[in-house]
Formats: sequence, structure tokens, C-alpha cells
Amino acid sequence: MRLVLERALLPDGIADDVVVEIEDGRFTSVTAPGLERNSRGAVAAREFRSTRLTGDSDRDSDRLPGLTLPGLANTHSHAFHRALRGRTQRERGTFWTWREQMYAVAGRLDPDSYFALARAAYREMVAAGYTGVAEFHYVHHRPDGRPYDDPAAMSRALVAAAAEAGIRLTLLPTLYSSSGFGEPVEPEQERFRHQRAEDLLALADGLKDDDRTRIGLAAHSVRAVAPDQLATLAADGRLLHVHLSEQRAENDGCRAAYGVTPTRLLADAGALGPRTTVVHATHLTDEDVALLGDSGTTVSMCPTTERDLGDGIGPARRLRDAGCPVTVGSDSQAVVDPFEELRAVELGERLATQARGHWTARELVDAGADHRALGFPDAGAIEVGARADLVTIDTGSVRTAGTGAAEETAVFAATAADVTRVMVDGRVVFRRGDDEAIGRELATAIEELLS
Amino acid sequence: MRLVLERALLPDGIADDVVVEIEDGRFTSVTAPGLERNSRGAVAAREFRSTRLTGDSDRDSDRLPGLTLPGLANTHSHAFHRALRGRTQRERGTFWTWREQMYAVAGRLDPDSYFALARAAYREMVAAGYTGVAEFHYVHHRPDGRPYDDPAAMSRALVAAAAEAGIRLTLLPTLYSSSGFGEPVEPEQERFRHQRAEDLLALADGLKDDDRTRIGLAAHSVRAVAPDQLATLAADGRLLHVHLSEQRAENDGCRAAYGVTPTRLLADAGALGPRTTVVHATHLTDEDVALLGDSGTTVSMCPTTERDLGDGIGPARRLRDAGCPVTVGSDSQAVVDPFEELRAVELGERLATQARGHWTARELVDAGADHRALGFPDAGAIEVGARADLVTIDTGSVRTAGTGAAEETAVFAATAADVTRVMVDGRVVFRRGDDEAIGRELATAIEELLS
Repeated sequence: MRLVLERALLPDGIADDVVVEIEDGRFTSVTAPGLERNSRGAVAAREFRSTRLTGDSDRDSDRLPGLTLPGLANTHSHAFHRALRGRTQRERGTFWTWREQMYAVAGRLDPDSYFALARAAYREMVAAGYTGVAEFHYVHHRPDGRPYDDPAAMSRALVAAAAEAGIRLTLLPTLYSSSGFGEPVEPEQERFRHQRAEDLLALADGLKDDDRTRIGLAAHSVRAVAPDQLATLAADGRLLHVHLSEQRAENDGCRAAYGVTPTRLLADAGALGPRTTVVHATHLTDEDVALLGDSGTTVSMCPTTERDLGDGIGPARRLRDAGCPVTVGSDSQAVVDPFEELRAVELGERLATQARGHWTARELVDAGADHRALGFPDAGAIEVGARADLVTIDTGSVRTAGTGAAEETAVFAATAADVTRVMVDGRVVFRRGDDEAIGRELATAIEELLS
Repeated sequence: MRLVLERALLPDGIADDVVVEIEDGRFTSVTAPGLERNSRGAVAAREFRSTRLTGDSDRDSDRLPGLTLPGLANTHSHAFHRALRGRTQRERGTFWTWREQMYAVAGRLDPDSYFALARAAYREMVAAGYTGVAEFHYVHHRPDGRPYDDPAAMSRALVAAAAEAGIRLTLLPTLYSSSGFGEPVEPEQERFRHQRAEDLLALADGLKDDDRTRIGLAAHSVRAVAPDQLATLAADGRLLHVHLSEQRAENDGCRAAYGVTPTRLLADAGALGPRTTVVHATHLTDEDVALLGDSGTTVSMCPTTERDLGDGIGPARRLRDAGCPVTVGSDSQAVVDPFEELRAVELGERLATQARGHWTARELVDAGADHRALGFPDAGAIEVGARADLVTIDTGSVRTAGTGAAEETAVFAATAADVTRVMVDGRVVFRRGDDEAIGRELATAIEELLS
């Protein structure tokens, strides 16, 4: 397959009239006649005229108008939380409103409804420009805590949902053993619970990687998983994700229980390193930042969720400077929009410091396109040999028109509504207009679940 | 004209199948057969099924599917800043990047290009659900500071732009006399400058209110306007808007120059009260909050701009509790989306306090629909006698589907991209699909200005 990208973000900068060849889901050729002329500095001089963008991709099927980006990685998702959007804000939407609603939804899921909801949520993600997702999955059992006949029935529902939606899935069966630092789980949490790390590993062993699926592991948090369990998961060798220091109460509880910060606890359990992704990392000490950076641990910031839950603003720039790959996740699905997520990383830093200028737009796009935490280091760049993911945005919408069609357009002007076409592994999985059907699918899945 | 609203937000709550009659731009009848049943509490019980929303407003022209809200008020705008979107973020987008670009754009404007850019920017606002806008207008003269032959030429360009876009305009000719606490203006600021408050009043006297235009006044800030000038503007009796305590440096400068906070300076000049709107109000003392609240001064929060400029998070809830009407503005046009602006008020409070639950969604919609600061107290409600503004949002989009189609859908799920139809004063000024042409108009206006 051969495509001409009107304008694209390549590893070396923005280029016009980029010709890509794709075979077996990968780029076999990427040529950019004007790349040298059009590298970062020169773009500002030669203004992009978005009025050129009136081309029609259907009429001229091998030419994509607009700005094409690499595929974006959603490094933290709880798919079923999509059913909570707009609902956890009722009354004044306190933390208790949120928690009550979250358990109510979790309690209603079965493999069929989980499949239907996740498929719709993943389709929303694809429509927003995410080409891979890490699913932090803890709804394992029947509501009363008994395993399904197939103990991996809920996991398989997610694998099937992602396959139908066309998004790569990194499934993270999650260990959840305690309601907090050794306390037994509450009744609503029975369906999340594995008492032994080995039980979770057995579940993971029953699932298989394929070309578009990775099976990793997650530890819910240092609240829900004990140090020896953390060590067992870390020793397994798979990708490992863990919620970390999202709220101050977790830090206080960890110090009370173990005398150390959650980050130090993870470090001592051998759970930090390049295979590990910590999620949130909002409230850290200087030593925590150094431990995460020195170990090359990835951080998944989820700023739209962190806003929604009132977690606070994590030190993204400091983590990056310390050595952590920084990525973003949609987490609670309060917002599914990688562009909003990426700009929120910079805008959060601005609110926290009352100064601008922490991240360049290019650094943010690169953070968004980093698929290593998903176990797909071969995705996220438009270059020969990489997986053929392409996310095209309209540079002439009311939001993006006149903004220069550069990285800044993607990060500081576009929203998910500006995505016109998404390709994953060489296959087109979304075209503008498909979103109407996705809206209907979301409505049906959520209404059937809640009715 | 008679319309049936599938679902609407009325003063008493959400109602289905609302019939409105409109004559001469006002509601003459509003009937809601199911209002009592469907008031706030009952909505949660009777789930809205968004699959009903497949009706086509063109086929059934008097029935509007979706959720219809009152018109939203943009209480702070600098229309020409729309040309800066995506551009002030280049390199790392420091404050100096922003300032340099802002002056560069301001320096290029003339009455024709100002008209073209403002008309496009106002059309983007209408498409986002704003039905009225307060324009804080300070680009008065030729670039070298000489007045135009018609000293109000730039003001008239804005009035004409708003009329063509179909948005109500509250034009605020702005006094800008000093680059900071008595310092003379810099060369780039010559075109903003009136040395005497009386000169600005003469400009305002040359402009006229009409049914859809109000002429008010603005003082740029306590930096740019001296206390005696503030007193002169306040004594005039028109609406008065002023930037207040957006950044800490302004507070420090004011204390150094006058020994008081900016809020106290305004109070002493007689410039607070129900006719006054202060913009930002980010960094306030307890006494400032009390002065603003006790005087009934309106506050215009501009949270997406305040994020972008790194201003900080203002005490919106405290101001409201103290007695201030709180409203929102798009200010720098970094984002033109009233829904994003409104949720940012609550989400900012959450980030600042690390707790949820400061504002209900209904309170936020009401804040967004408060048109008093624009001098149109008769707008912003779907009730008999009010101006017939209606903003309809799609409740079945990928963002809004399954969220319950209540106030929470508008504030916590929708974006400007979900607006399907906007009516101002009984006239339809936007229908979904019009946004393509608006994008082209924005691109042309900005590219011609910058080329």
C-alpha cells in the first residue's frame, strides 16, 4: 500500500508530501522530498496554508490531507469506567459519589456486558487517535468472588473487544488482595481479589501474546498488594504496571505500615525498572523521583483523571529530567482525548509553577507516541520498520484553522474531534463519520448495563 | 415560531418535550408537560435513552433532538488573540514568546483585518454555544499611535463583525495609559493608548447601544490605569470591566506603588459594584474576596487561558460564596469552548484543594448562562419573556453517549464539538456543518493577517 501524507510528523521534524509504503502492517519506505527544507526551524518561516486542505480523502484515496502523526499510546485504562462519565459528578460529585458509582457499575458487569462496554470504549479511543491501550484489569470473578468457569473469562472479553475495535491491547491482569495495607477486601471488592500472587500468574499464563496483544501484569497499588507479592510479580519478568502515590493518603498509609514511601517500597521489592510503569506518581519525594528516574521506570500521567479526582499535579518534567519516559493514559475515561491529555501535562506544570515553558510540543507528541510501556517498542514513529500506525487530524477545523499545522496544532489546538482517520498496523480502523455509530454503540452498552 | 425541545434545561430543572413559542426574539410561551415528574431528582431515576436521539432536526424541523441549554455568555474576549493559537507555544512557549507574538499580531491589525479576524472568531464562539460576548478592546489607533480618521474605526469593525456572526456584543473600549504604574507606554503599545480617561469616554460616546449591542467601558488594569482615571470611568455609569490580580507581579507592583492590593485600589476608586466585572481575580487576599463579594462585583474566570498563561487557579467558589456572580470567558481564545471553561472552574478547585465537590453541574451551567455582566440580564434562561437563545448539544456523540443527558452531560462530558444548533434572539445562527466554512474563514483571516 502506498499513501501520500500531505504533511506529517517524522522523527526529524514536520515534512510535506511524505510518501509511505506499507507491507504486512509495517512501513517499508518513508520518503519526504522536502524534509530538509521543512525541518523544525523552517516550518515557522514557510507558513502552512490550511486552505489547501480542502482535498477529499475519499476522492483521492491515496492522499491524506491534514497533519498525520504517529499512533498514540494510552498507557492506562479502566475500560468499564466509561459508564461512569457524567454520573460520578451528580450532586456535588464528591469522592464518595465516585466510589459508590464505580462499585455499582463494577458489580453489574459480566463477560458479555464487559465485552460490549469495552469494545465501545476502545472504539472511542481509536476514534481519538489511540492505537494501543494498556488495560489495568481487576474485575476478574463473579460478583460474589467465585471464579467464572473459565477463570480468564473477563480477560478474554477484553482481548476480544480490543480485536474488534482494532486497537492493540496490552492486558494487565491486576492483583488486588487487600482493601488497604493488609485489611481484608470489602464485599464489593471480592470480584477483584486474588489472595496469592501465584493465582494471578496462573491467570496470566492462560492468556497468550499475539502480534497485537501483550499480556503483562499489574499490582493495583501498595495498598492492595503486599511487599512479598510485589516481589513475586516483579520476578516474573513480564511488563508490570502499578498505581503509585496518586493521593497523599496512600503515602501516609504506606509510611505507617512500612516506614517508607510507596516508591521506596517498590524499589525494595525489585519492582522498578524499564519493564515497569507507575501510574500517576503525583505526590513524590525527591528521593522517589531519583529512584524512578535512575531505574528507567516509565510514568503514566493521567492528567484529565487526576483533575477529575482532585489528585493534584504530578512532577512530570522532573520525572522526565530524572530519566523516566513519561506517557499519558485516559484512566477513568472522564475524557478520551490524547491531545487534551498531552497539553494538560504542560498546562498542569504551568498551574503548579505559575510559569510557562516546561515541555515543547514536540516532546509532548513524542511522549504521547511512546508505546514501550505497552510492550510495543516498534510502534509510535513514522519510519521504516515501524508498525504502520497513522493518526490524521484536520488542520482546517474551527479549532485548528490558522494555527500553523505544526506540532503545536496537535498539542495546543486540536481535540479528539479533529481526528479524521486512524490506521493501526496498516489497517484503517477509523474514518471521520464512524463516530456516529460509535456513539450509538456506547449508548447501548451503557444503557443495557445500567438498566 | 414554535419549537419542541426533546429535552431542555429550564429554570426548575431538566424537562422533556418542552414546547417553546418565540416572537420578536423572545420566548412568549414555555410549556413542559413532564416538568414536575422530570425535575432534578426524578431524572436520575428515569434514565434518558440516548438511542432515542436519532431524530433528524432537518426532517422534523420544529423538533430539536438532544439537550437544549440556555445561551452561554462569554464575559471576556480579546478576539484578535485567535490568531495566536498554537503560535505562542513555539519553542517552549515562555511568557516572552507569548508577549512577542501578541504584539506582532496586534501591530498588523487594521480595521479591515480586525473585522475579518473578529468575525471569524465570533463565529467560532457562536458555534461553541456562546450567544453573547464582552470584547475587551484596546487596539484603538494606527500602529504609530495616531488616531484613525474615524477614531472609533476599530470599535466599529468589532460591532460589524459581531452583527455578521450573529452574536450579541458588549463592546468595552479599554483605557490603557501606562505600561505599568505610571511608566510611559512602550512603542508597541502606542496604538492602545489614551492618555486621559475623558478621551476614552468620548470614544464610547460616539458608539451606540442597540437591541443586540451594549457599549460599556474597561480599564485595562491597575497597572495601566491610574486611580483617578479609574474613578472617572467608574463615575460614568456604564458597565465597567477590569483585569484584576491575574499574576502575583501585579499585586506586588500595586502594593509598591500605592500600598494597597489592586482590589482595594478599585474599591477606593468607587470601581466595584454590580455594574463591574473583574477578570481573573486569581491571587486575592481574604479582604479582597470580601470587598468583591460585599459589593456584588461579577467575576469573569478564564480558566483555559489562566492555565495557558500559568496564572494559577482563582478562588471561584470562595468568591461565589462571598456574593460574587461568577462567569466565564474565553479571553485569549487558546480554547473556545464554554463546556471546557465551566468544568475547568470545578476541576481547578479540585486540583487546588485535592478534594472533589465544590460546584454542582447546575451551578456551573447557571454561571455559564449569566449574561448580566454583558448588560443583558434578560438573556440566559428558557422562560417566558427572556431572549430566545437556545444551545442544543448532541447527547449521542462519542463524548456524550451514555452520560445521562443531564446537566452533568453538558459540563463534564460535552465539548464545543457537540453543539448542533445555536439560536440567538430567536434567530438560528449556527447549525452543525456550518463549522467547515467557519474553519475556512478563520484560516483565511489569520493567514492574510500574518502573511
